[in-house]
Amino acid sequence: MTRSDATGHRVAMLGTGLIGDFYTMTLHGRRSRDRVEVVYSRSVERGDAFCERWDVPHATTSIEEAIDHPDVDTVVIGLPNHMHADAIATVAASGKAVLCTKPLARTADEAKGILDVVESAGVFAGYLEDLVYTPKTIKALASVGAGAIGDVMWVRSRETHPGPHSAWFWDAEQAGGGCIVDLGCHCIEIIRSYVGKGNRPVEVMCWSDTLVHPIEAEDNAIALVRFESGAIGQFEVSWTFRGGMDLRDEVAGTDGTIWTNHFLRTGFEMFAGGDGGYVAEKAETESGWLFPVGDEVAELGYVDMFTDMFDAIDQGREPVETFFDGYVVNAVMDACFRSSASRQWEPVELDWRHGTTSRIAKPSRSEDGMVVIKEEHLPDGRRKLILKDPAGGFVDRIV
Amino acid sequence: MTRSDATGHRVAMLGTGLIGDFYTMTLHGRRSRDRVEVVYSRSVERGDAFCERWDVPHATTSIEEAIDHPDVDTVVIGLPNHMHADAIATVAASGKAVLCTKPLARTADEAKGILDVVESAGVFAGYLEDLVYTPKTIKALASVGAGAIGDVMWVRSRETHPGPHSAWFWDAEQAGGGCIVDLGCHCIEIIRSYVGKGNRPVEVMCWSDTLVHPIEAEDNAIALVRFESGAIGQFEVSWTFRGGMDLRDEVAGTDGTIWTNHFLRTGFEMFAGGDGGYVAEKAETESGWLFPVGDEVAELGYVDMFTDMFDAIDQGREPVETFFDGYVVNAVMDACFRSSASRQWEPVELDWRHGTTSRIAKPSRSEDGMVVIKEEHLPDGRRKLILKDPAGGFVDRIV
Amino acid sequence: MTRSDATGHRVAMLGTGLIGDFYTMTLHGRRSRDRVEVVYSRSVERGDAFCERWDVPHATTSIEEAIDHPDVDTVVIGLPNHMHADAIATVAASGKAVLCTKPLARTADEAKGILDVVESAGVFAGYLEDLVYTPKTIKALASVGAGAIGDVMWVRSRETHPGPHSAWFWDAEQAGGGCIVDLGCHCIEIIRSYVGKGNRPVEVMCWSDTLVHPIEAEDNAIALVRFESGAIGQFEVSWTFRGGMDLRDEVAGTDGTIWTNHFLRTGFEMFAGGDGGYVAEKAETESGWLFPVGDEVAELGYVDMFTDMFDAIDQGREPVETFFDGYVVNAVMDACFRSSASRQWEPVELDWRHGTTSRIAKPSRSEDGMVVIKEEHLPDGRRKLILKDPAGGFVDRIV
Amino acid sequence: MTRSDATGHRVAMLGTGLIGDFYTMTLHGRRSRDRVEVVYSRSVERGDAFCERWDVPHATTSIEEAIDHPDVDTVVIGLPNHMHADAIATVAASGKAVLCTKPLARTADEAKGILDVVESAGVFAGYLEDLVYTPKTIKALASVGAGAIGDVMWVRSRETHPGPHSAWFWDAEQAGGGCIVDLGCHCIEIIRSYVGKGNRPVEVMCWSDTLVHPIEAEDNAIALVRFESGAIGQFEVSWTFRGGMDLRDEVAGTDGTIWTNHFLRTGFEMFAGGDGGYVAEKAETESGWLFPVGDEVAELGYVDMFTDMFDAIDQGREPVETFFDGYVVNAVMDACFRSSASRQWEPVELDWRHGTTSRIAKPSRSEDGMVVIKEEHLPDGRRKLILKDPAGGFVDRIV
Repeated sequence: MTRSDATGHRVAMLGTGLIGDFYTMTLHGRRSRDRVEVVYSRSVERGDAFCERWDVPHATTSIEEAIDHPDVDTVVIGLPNHMHADAIATVAASGKAVLCTKPLARTADEAKGILDVVESAGVFAGYLEDLVYTPKTIKALASVGAGAIGDVMWVRSRETHPGPHSAWFWDAEQAGGGCIVDLGCHCIEIIRSYVGKGNRPVEVMCWSDTLVHPIEAEDNAIALVRFESGAIGQFEVSWTFRGGMDLRDEVAGTDGTIWTNHFLRTGFEMFAGGDGGYVAEKAETESGWLFPVGDEVAELGYVDMFTDMFDAIDQGREPVETFFDGYVVNAVMDACFRSSASRQWEPVELDWRHGTTSRIAKPSRSEDGMVVIKEEHLPDGRRKLILKDPAGGFVDRIV
Repeated sequence: MTRSDATGHRVAMLGTGLIGDFYTMTLHGRRSRDRVEVVYSRSVERGDAFCERWDVPHATTSIEEAIDHPDVDTVVIGLPNHMHADAIATVAASGKAVLCTKPLARTADEAKGILDVVESAGVFAGYLEDLVYTPKTIKALASVGAGAIGDVMWVRSRETHPGPHSAWFWDAEQAGGGCIVDLGCHCIEIIRSYVGKGNRPVEVMCWSDTLVHPIEAEDNAIALVRFESGAIGQFEVSWTFRGGMDLRDEVAGTDGTIWTNHFLRTGFEMFAGGDGGYVAEKAETESGWLFPVGDEVAELGYVDMFTDMFDAIDQGREPVETFFDGYVVNAVMDACFRSSASRQWEPVELDWRHGTTSRIAKPSRSEDGMVVIKEEHLPDGRRKLILKDPAGGFVDRIV
Repeated sequence: MTRSDATGHRVAMLGTGLIGDFYTMTLHGRRSRDRVEVVYSRSVERGDAFCERWDVPHATTSIEEAIDHPDVDTVVIGLPNHMHADAIATVAASGKAVLCTKPLARTADEAKGILDVVESAGVFAGYLEDLVYTPKTIKALASVGAGAIGDVMWVRSRETHPGPHSAWFWDAEQAGGGCIVDLGCHCIEIIRSYVGKGNRPVEVMCWSDTLVHPIEAEDNAIALVRFESGAIGQFEVSWTFRGGMDLRDEVAGTDGTIWTNHFLRTGFEMFAGGDGGYVAEKAETESGWLFPVGDEVAELGYVDMFTDMFDAIDQGREPVETFFDGYVVNAVMDACFRSSASRQWEPVELDWRHGTTSRIAKPSRSEDGMVVIKEEHLPDGRRKLILKDPAGGFVDRIV
Repeated sequence: MTRSDATGHRVAMLGTGLIGDFYTMTLHGRRSRDRVEVVYSRSVERGDAFCERWDVPHATTSIEEAIDHPDVDTVVIGLPNHMHADAIATVAASGKAVLCTKPLARTADEAKGILDVVESAGVFAGYLEDLVYTPKTIKALASVGAGAIGDVMWVRSRETHPGPHSAWFWDAEQAGGGCIVDLGCHCIEIIRSYVGKGNRPVEVMCWSDTLVHPIEAEDNAIALVRFESGAIGQFEVSWTFRGGMDLRDEVAGTDGTIWTNHFLRTGFEMFAGGDGGYVAEKAETESGWLFPVGDEVAELGYVDMFTDMFDAIDQGREPVETFFDGYVVNAVMDACFRSSASRQWEPVELDWRHGTTSRIAKPSRSEDGMVVIKEEHLPDGRRKLILKDPAGGFVDRIV
């Protein structure tokens, strides 16, 4: 960064829902030099309340007016999923930078259209996938990149809570699906980040069901995503979880293991005999044992995400999360829905841009002409070998 | 129990491997009134060492001699999987009680044969599935039974470690498979216990692969088991996990959540700058941060398992874990292998003995003629409702 | 153990309070060969209910009759503190074994009298300090004994909960004090076990106060106990803690660290949306996030404690916890009360029976004629030394 | 904040040690609008390396030159303790804002002199006590302020690690003491924040010893700080802890409990079979089970601390942590050293500026003319009361 960048960016925020609040809390927090200049809402009342709440100078009920505001250089899309494509097309036409909340679209086709539009226009486009930017994930990914756990074989990403806060999420038409679209998009990108973004997602096996809520969309789903290297991603998403918001990732490598817990167990525990007040997003109770989160927008990745986005604009580079990533996520989700219906593995259909990834290495060593399967150190200092005879059969040997 | 039972049982232990050690440590521990009277091993040396180690009066290299020992009333099978059927048949013929380690057999067919033999003979038969008997699981199951978490929707059971200690485990021929057979059998029975043992396992979707070890058997697998109620079981098993033995179960109910951790995080943490000595089964290191387990045989369920088995014999009732349970587990594992090959959901083929289970309840209430999807309490004391209009569409409403 | 011991012990249980229940649940649990034969209670009704509850053959309202029951060989004292001395004297006169709950007495003088009585009579006497016998503590002590954490420098033992269940605990006259006597006795013995029981407690600094309850006895106290080796013990006890029963120990050694958590965080977590039923001793709520304990009597040490006591009788050896230990605990508590009043360090007045312990070792090494204070490994592979010049002053050096 | 503040502050950083690095990493991190303009170091080499490392425009070996740099409006003191007073006096004379690292001084006398100097000069002065600003602490303090846990009775603040990184820390002359001065200063201010900064620290009882290192300064200390309300603070500090940096706070209130863990157990766990690389400040190992911290400067409070400091300057208000707070901390530490020598409680000698605080409330209610000591809900739905008879004695009653 050069010091002249210190003037910061001026943002048009489209949408005043929970995500608009979180984004603006982040943009205006700490000693940030970036500011929301104008907010769009369908409702005058909600727009004005938003300006009041976050000290934003202007509100408007016109998306175009928000985008075209002369002081604005960057537009943040915080709208329901079915409105992304049109809004992004308008921003692209304006030539300004566009940052879009997750998921990018409702289907891979729609996402591909969005991707084509911004690429044709040549505007900066960033995909606001916050959970890839949590401080824990950033450091864990750096360790994986440095080889600390060897080749990644398996990633579990879990996001479950008691259900979203706004009506449109529950409407499969507007949202493009249920908890797979709402939560699975996070998990898929976390998984991709750990197995390597150049590691192609090949096929998907998915189960989904509507177990509790009187809706058409799925309120529970589990999927396996198989990558070209042989690595397997596993996501679990639910709108029926009880106890708060469960955000955990687990990674198994050939040489190590990583577990991160972003929300319910982060080293902050409170027992409130009476009324403990607001605890954390989607907490269910305000008394008894509670598990608050220190700084939610930081722990959920918003701070580091916007830092990457604006630094990328300033430095003329791509952000860590691009619209291509958003498109890949939609392609995996499409395969999930197909698999859930067909009840078998379904290929991920995708215009892949990266290269190929070789199979996870399986090096072996020999001892006395036999392959060493396992070596253990015994309490008495000796070693126990489990060996495989090329002629067939396995033997134990103490050495 | 009547006081005359206090004389206890006399056991023939078949096998001197790790499991024989754990079983005998349990049987001879605490103030137990039961004793191992005779041990069978193919090897004179190992039999004698076992007698010495556990203060057992007799060793023999003949299975028949061990079973027929006049003081023995109960035979424990701690042999490799491919030897179970013959050994159990011999015990059945003797009329004595038989307790068999997990898995019962290598296939459902073999298990059904075993079940028929003991039922024809009319002998007491107990299935030594220890992890269903861990103190945490017993109390958690009691809470589930009391309705503390509502209807069980999802159970995750995970057992992973760096691989087994004896050569025969690695030989698919002798073992009947790899980590599915070694570890999945535990998970399946834990899952069944939480969703209800009368809840029929209907079908299975399984992924398996051999990612690290130079063997034919699978060293990693994940499976989904769908039950008649709609509940889904998920197991993750691996012989390539790094960091010790990961034994965790997670249960999601319509009204609550249960998480149990049996091994690596149980409230016992030690940093050893130098050499900390033996830590726990399958621990990988003896310095740095270590996570010992207080009383392994208790925490792994062996104590409560044998208590149930012998109390059941004394009281003339069935144990909690029967050979029928072992047979169901084998039937689910068979479906896992078929699914892994066919790459689609496979039915669990089984002579089911219990009744039918109805679908998880999905009760709903209405407000103003609309279905309530979700209700949240806002910080200002008001309620936010998300409602579904029968005419189509979802709306937010603050009341 | 020889097999003829298998006939077990027959116990007279004096007292039907919470502790009598826990002891009997333990004695009759698992496959135990020991049984309570007769119970004493002041109240016919409570005695009969106890017999019914635990399948005990006989109840009596006479302590003498209970002790003299012909089938009884061991008497367990589960009475309020002020009744210990007389009851133990009666057992001693009978020549039977006596096991006394904690604390042994209300003061060191009273404890010394009790000790003299049982030693004169030559009867077996065991001090029922259960928390030294928790499975985690037993294994942790073994690791400390094996040198895993070097010399023990500091032990924190904490026991806090919302207050005891029976009226007599709250009466300083009958109990001999408040939470120091009720809970501190556990902590002191845990601390002694970690620093070494042959390590003399030299002096004590104690703060106590009555912060919440309308009573005369202290409801909060903190004490430091300095041992001959220089090691420091720290206990925190409270009857005003909110959130359940907090039972944690922390140990710092020159080469390592141990943390044990016996109750509130043991790897068992439950969220109950409705009513979860009984959770654990002193749990405050039955819904929200709950932290049950798998097998309370095992986790609290009762199982291993009675195993040690009866095995010691059978083997003709001393138990791990003796009446001398109980006397030492009382002497430390006496010093606590004196210090709390005098507001300064007070000596522990005690007829010490063990030898002396040398000061914690402080070995040092030199490099270039300077003493090495600290050595760090830098990320680039170099070492950073902090050195002390014999001529005075400290310097950093990268090597 | 008004938008014209967005130009940010220009800082002179005095000192290039670990703390200078952490501060500058924070000031230049995220989307900050504040920048370090000039750095002072005794060493040209270290100053230049610092400029290179953090993209700082100017280095100087003259403190005066750094302070007087025309673009600089704020000076940060990151020097050894014995240099604080002179450097602050120089800044005060310049009229610029001064932010000083902890501890403010080596003694309360020295701190009072510093306080007088900045107050006479009328400059903005902020005390850089980062751990009061950790995200968890900020939220926990807000909950305490909102009454979530009632009156605070007890606070434990613990900071222990294997010893500091620079030579001067180990020299009691330059530092003013050992781990009390290095670490206790944090704990004291955390404790004050929880019990209320207007709650006067009345007296202190402290134990300290030099158990491991060949130095004169204390390497271990424990202190109790009694406040006017009756609340008790407890701090544990050590330079001999093994296993990383242990930073935990525990708070007991009349209605609730708070536990925060800032470093070793924050929901991020990694097992590295080989070499895991840099883990976290003061981590001892790079393989085995490791506990990294997501974003260290955020988790340790640096981000929120500088936000408060610069926002306070911009808004013309006092920061949360003032030089008066630094002076109070020094006064408490002075009492610690006196108490450690006198072996009794020592008063905190202090020009107190706040008012008085009343004793923790002890409300009680009566039932049938007796005082209710405790009320429990029994499993069968009845209530058990423990009552105190005004005539003397305590009784149990089931109602």
